[in-house]
Amino acid sequence: MAGKKKVGLVGVTGYTGMELSRILLGHPDLELTAVTSRKEAGKPLSVIYPFLQNTALQDLVISAPDPETLARQCDLVFLAVPHGTAMEMGAALVDAGTRVVDLSADFRIRDAAVYANWYGLEHTRRSHIERAVYGLPELYADQVRNASLVANPGCYPTSVILGLYPALAKGLVHTDGIVVDSKSGASGAGRKASVGTLFCEVHDSFKAYGLGKHRHTPEIEQEISLAAGKGLTVSFNTHLLPIDRGILSTTYTVLREATSLEEIHAEYSDFYEGRPWVRVLPLGVLPETRWVRGTMFCDIGLVVDPRTNRLVIVSAIDNLCRGASGQAVANANLMLGLPPQAGLNLPPMMP
Amino acid sequence: MAGKKKVGLVGVTGYTGMELSRILLGHPDLELTAVTSRKEAGKPLSVIYPFLQNTALQDLVISAPDPETLARQCDLVFLAVPHGTAMEMGAALVDAGTRVVDLSADFRIRDAAVYANWYGLEHTRRSHIERAVYGLPELYADQVRNASLVANPGCYPTSVILGLYPALAKGLVHTDGIVVDSKSGASGAGRKASVGTLFCEVHDSFKAYGLGKHRHTPEIEQEISLAAGKGLTVSFNTHLLPIDRGILSTTYTVLREATSLEEIHAEYSDFYEGRPWVRVLPLGVLPETRWVRGTMFCDIGLVVDPRTNRLVIVSAIDNLCRGASGQAVANANLMLGLPPQAGLNLPPMMP
Amino acid sequence: MAGKKKVGLVGVTGYTGMELSRILLGHPDLELTAVTSRKEAGKPLSVIYPFLQNTALQDLVISAPDPETLARQCDLVFLAVPHGTAMEMGAALVDAGTRVVDLSADFRIRDAAVYANWYGLEHTRRSHIERAVYGLPELYADQVRNASLVANPGCYPTSVILGLYPALAKGLVHTDGIVVDSKSGASGAGRKASVGTLFCEVHDSFKAYGLGKHRHTPEIEQEISLAAGKGLTVSFNTHLLPIDRGILSTTYTVLREATSLEEIHAEYSDFYEGRPWVRVLPLGVLPETRWVRGTMFCDIGLVVDPRTNRLVIVSAIDNLCRGASGQAVANANLMLGLPPQAGLNLPPMMP
Amino acid sequence: MAGKKKVGLVGVTGYTGMELSRILLGHPDLELTAVTSRKEAGKPLSVIYPFLQNTALQDLVISAPDPETLARQCDLVFLAVPHGTAMEMGAALVDAGTRVVDLSADFRIRDAAVYANWYGLEHTRRSHIERAVYGLPELYADQVRNASLVANPGCYPTSVILGLYPALAKGLVHTDGIVVDSKSGASGAGRKASVGTLFCEVHDSFKAYGLGKHRHTPEIEQEISLAAGKGLTVSFNTHLLPIDRGILSTTYTVLREATSLEEIHAEYSDFYEGRPWVRVLPLGVLPETRWVRGTMFCDIGLVVDPRTNRLVIVSAIDNLCRGASGQAVANANLMLGLPPQAGLNLPPMMP
Repeated sequence: MAGKKKVGLVGVTGYTGMELSRILLGHPDLELTAVTSRKEAGKPLSVIYPFLQNTALQDLVISAPDPETLARQCDLVFLAVPHGTAMEMGAALVDAGTRVVDLSADFRIRDAAVYANWYGLEHTRRSHIERAVYGLPELYADQVRNASLVANPGCYPTSVILGLYPALAKGLVHTDGIVVDSKSGASGAGRKASVGTLFCEVHDSFKAYGLGKHRHTPEIEQEISLAAGKGLTVSFNTHLLPIDRGILSTTYTVLREATSLEEIHAEYSDFYEGRPWVRVLPLGVLPETRWVRGTMFCDIGLVVDPRTNRLVIVSAIDNLCRGASGQAVANANLMLGLPPQAGLNLPPMMP
Repeated sequence: MAGKKKVGLVGVTGYTGMELSRILLGHPDLELTAVTSRKEAGKPLSVIYPFLQNTALQDLVISAPDPETLARQCDLVFLAVPHGTAMEMGAALVDAGTRVVDLSADFRIRDAAVYANWYGLEHTRRSHIERAVYGLPELYADQVRNASLVANPGCYPTSVILGLYPALAKGLVHTDGIVVDSKSGASGAGRKASVGTLFCEVHDSFKAYGLGKHRHTPEIEQEISLAAGKGLTVSFNTHLLPIDRGILSTTYTVLREATSLEEIHAEYSDFYEGRPWVRVLPLGVLPETRWVRGTMFCDIGLVVDPRTNRLVIVSAIDNLCRGASGQAVANANLMLGLPPQAGLNLPPMMP
Repeated sequence: MAGKKKVGLVGVTGYTGMELSRILLGHPDLELTAVTSRKEAGKPLSVIYPFLQNTALQDLVISAPDPETLARQCDLVFLAVPHGTAMEMGAALVDAGTRVVDLSADFRIRDAAVYANWYGLEHTRRSHIERAVYGLPELYADQVRNASLVANPGCYPTSVILGLYPALAKGLVHTDGIVVDSKSGASGAGRKASVGTLFCEVHDSFKAYGLGKHRHTPEIEQEISLAAGKGLTVSFNTHLLPIDRGILSTTYTVLREATSLEEIHAEYSDFYEGRPWVRVLPLGVLPETRWVRGTMFCDIGLVVDPRTNRLVIVSAIDNLCRGASGQAVANANLMLGLPPQAGLNLPPMMP
Repeated sequence: MAGKKKVGLVGVTGYTGMELSRILLGHPDLELTAVTSRKEAGKPLSVIYPFLQNTALQDLVISAPDPETLARQCDLVFLAVPHGTAMEMGAALVDAGTRVVDLSADFRIRDAAVYANWYGLEHTRRSHIERAVYGLPELYADQVRNASLVANPGCYPTSVILGLYPALAKGLVHTDGIVVDSKSGASGAGRKASVGTLFCEVHDSFKAYGLGKHRHTPEIEQEISLAAGKGLTVSFNTHLLPIDRGILSTTYTVLREATSLEEIHAEYSDFYEGRPWVRVLPLGVLPETRWVRGTMFCDIGLVVDPRTNRLVIVSAIDNLCRGASGQAVANANLMLGLPPQAGLNLPPMMP
């Protein structure tokens, strides 16, 4: 294991922690050497996660989180704690001299007033917002390479921004009237005990929630406004799927002109040339969440509806891998000077 | 059983056939006395459906479909065969003197040219289209009462039309730019063997299909154009859910004026006053497909998004009950002079 | 509603409370007039259960449980509270003069020492154990008719006892070496918030739990010992299925002699003659939990394996209906002098 | 890719073909260079499997199967075709000079008469049965290394044999009276269109099938008889789970003596020392199929029930990975002189 970079994980007990463990077990250049949880400190990882028995992580002992110690031990720390908590811990880790990939929302929103408005919380570390880079590799790889603090994108925003960006950046669609109808698997709700996410409340059912009010809205608007070169407002709406992993976003736009599907497909293919994690699917093929299960892929399907002059964009990701832990590792690769795809050429688990 | 009306079912081997059996077993005034299937003719119903053992239907022998015989035996016949086949069988049954509720699309579209365009099939019984009534009880109960041929609405259209109708009829929203994002359980795809609907292809996944091209589009447009008093075009888009039953449609509209949610809620409640199967949910409550499982309810949740000046309408039904067999029984009740709710006060199965 | 008997429900907030509401909404002779929950007291039922809007139960106000009041208001009270709590409440209700169907385990075990041993709790109302009748209608209908306190059987035991009883009562199989491998849907675990029953912990997975230690073991042994006429010990083992409802028990026995499947099938059919809720499936047909979904049926499939000289019995029920609330209503029917099947001729929801 | 061994796959269109593609995409020493399907010949792999776009396999063109060509092109061929077909193709490939891992049952049963009896088919290549090695790496690694033809074990047998072997080999349990209750996910039924495996027939349900008659019975008996040193008959019984992947087998045995769980656990740990894919779980921990999802692990949980003097063994595998394609790669590694674990250190996908 000589030569591997050492990384830590603050907050190992949730689904993103599980997923990061899975990914790092197959990573050739990163070694998970510190994991923390106040509640489970002192236990080997395989005691809380029996499925890690007989893996390289089985004996890693969980510790209580301490920024100074982590900074000393690790070349980079992944932060998987709730927003609010993350801003302090993230700032402390950066100040202690290590690099940080924060999986929470705390450093994603450039405008602290917008953050306060949507998250109901004053930001206490505004100077660190300025240092933070929004870690969507297809858009910001160069900035990420030099960052000490990366704000890992939210799961919904990853699917929506990658789906919309080319259409807006290339001026194919109108900037107003955009509607996003997103659907997410239940792992997005986290691993805390609650009646609403019990098996019998989610299974064999489907519902909408948080319509027009989801906290990922300002994050989406921030990034696609940059694509469009002007401030955008979108209608962003979320639904809960009875699946473990996966987000599929159906985005409705209005074409500026009567562009053919072939032309739009070519523009998208051109935009994502050399970015192999974004797969612009062949004409007529639409994404399925299972096709990206366990992977970094964002699959994009395109439909032109001449009756309504609309471009409909369907984009699918795995919310835990591409939408959280896998993307965090991609950012870590960039920050540590590793090959961007190291440990992340994960084929989908089908079925 | 003296005094019960006798009804028949052409096409018993699919999910709508199963569901009609379930509903009629609890109906106080209707008795299922004839069921047909070319392939299974001669067998008692409980041989192909062991779950009907020890019910009143267990010994009912499946016959081959014959319009004359059915018309003689039955006060009304439910038709659960594919479109194309239904137009001939439906016309023959009506001509033989019985009443018919057709669960296919064949008599739903008033304009035969539109039918031909979307279904790729010339309509061979145009005069029967004129006699047919579109069987959405909240809108057309009076016409249904006097009809000999009822076109039972499609599953998706039932959810969308009931959701949109008040907003359009009351002029609350603009008539253009409407987007419908619908999601359906797998029973909507029917019970024929196919790789695409195998368990391992559907489970733990989610996909879009037929965007902008679904055949239920003209049916929706026909009815909501009547609501609006002018011809409408909508963007109608469908997705496949890994659940057995249930459709949830999220419909995006633009408000004409800055109307409050309270006002809109009052308009909807007023519109559906006295129609107990449509439940306008309390402010802030959004539908879940399980809440309508096995029932006639169409649950409607309303959201006003002031950021985008949109009214978002979420409507949920059980595609097999309200979207097919239950609605067919509601129409039969009306056609046969029975209490409209007879046999249909079905509470949801939770969980 | 004149002439309906009034019934109450203590503990409305769990899955058995939901299911009892569903069943009583369709019951011709019982009216649910009181529901209790300390936590939700004061709210109309449709506030905690929006799916009851537009039903006869929507406005029923939840109260705090008080035995005296309940006894005054109700002809019979269903008790759906945890064991331990139920013994005091059940005794108080009976002492206050009403009839009680207790869905907990507190009055099922005749021997208080056995109860204490398996439940880790001294029984404080032993005299009431003696008054209680074990409410399995196929076996004890006559005693139930005269009982003031009925112990509603457990879900697993209902499936196992009905499956094994004829084989033991008729001396077809050896009394030792019996193995029961049971599998239950997640609603059996109740509706309290816990990580172990979150959607993402149960979905797309399967596990064994509590092998050899499940508290339903003494209940099974008590009843099948009566069938066999001697004390029996069984190996009883439980597993968690990723489904909402349903228990399927596969029971392995050794034949006394080389009896044919036809003979055994005839014995079972004879034993359950006149008991239409138990369906001895045709030769070669094995149960599926969905065939009994939402019903009172217990489906039994029989297999003789000549290679091992075994009779394998497969029995399936709906754990919430037959295994809890439906069976409770069956007992209420008997106790109140109603037709045994009143409100309970429920056909399965398929699919 | 220089230096990689070239392997082929006959029969790419099923779930085992998908899984083999997934595993080989991450294998450092094997390259999939030929895939065959009569029906899909001529298409690139990503046309039938869009989820392979942007992977190293996307442009691999499917060919029609030809033994001579395959033998020339490949160092080893995986055979994923139905039994009956496999015996001829497997023999032809071996005769043409390549190594073969056959995933069908055709070369698993040493005794051709037993094969004929259970599979209803005369074996036409008996001399190749003698050359074949049963490819369970924990038991037969040395023989596999020198084999030209390996019979890859069945999915159920892998779980049962690994679970039972130590108990029998070490004489801990009686050899008669063994009952195996196995449960499998739906991918085990394959990917052909059939009503019985449609989503709506499998989802939210559970059933038993083929009790006492499953074709994996003689395979299990063959191997555990070798463990016991005497001919054994077991009661083997199968059930269908509404999950994609995973088999969990609960095996009921009778202890020879009153051995403690600790002793038995020590014997199992000792038996599987140095075989890291078999995880004997800690005392009190029982397997869950998700813990082995996508992996080579066979998790074993042990329970001693002193009331019945039984040892209950719970063993879980992923039927597609450990029970089919992953185990096939393990055998290929051995046959080609590669590190046994090459490409197979796959952590579980959780959740």
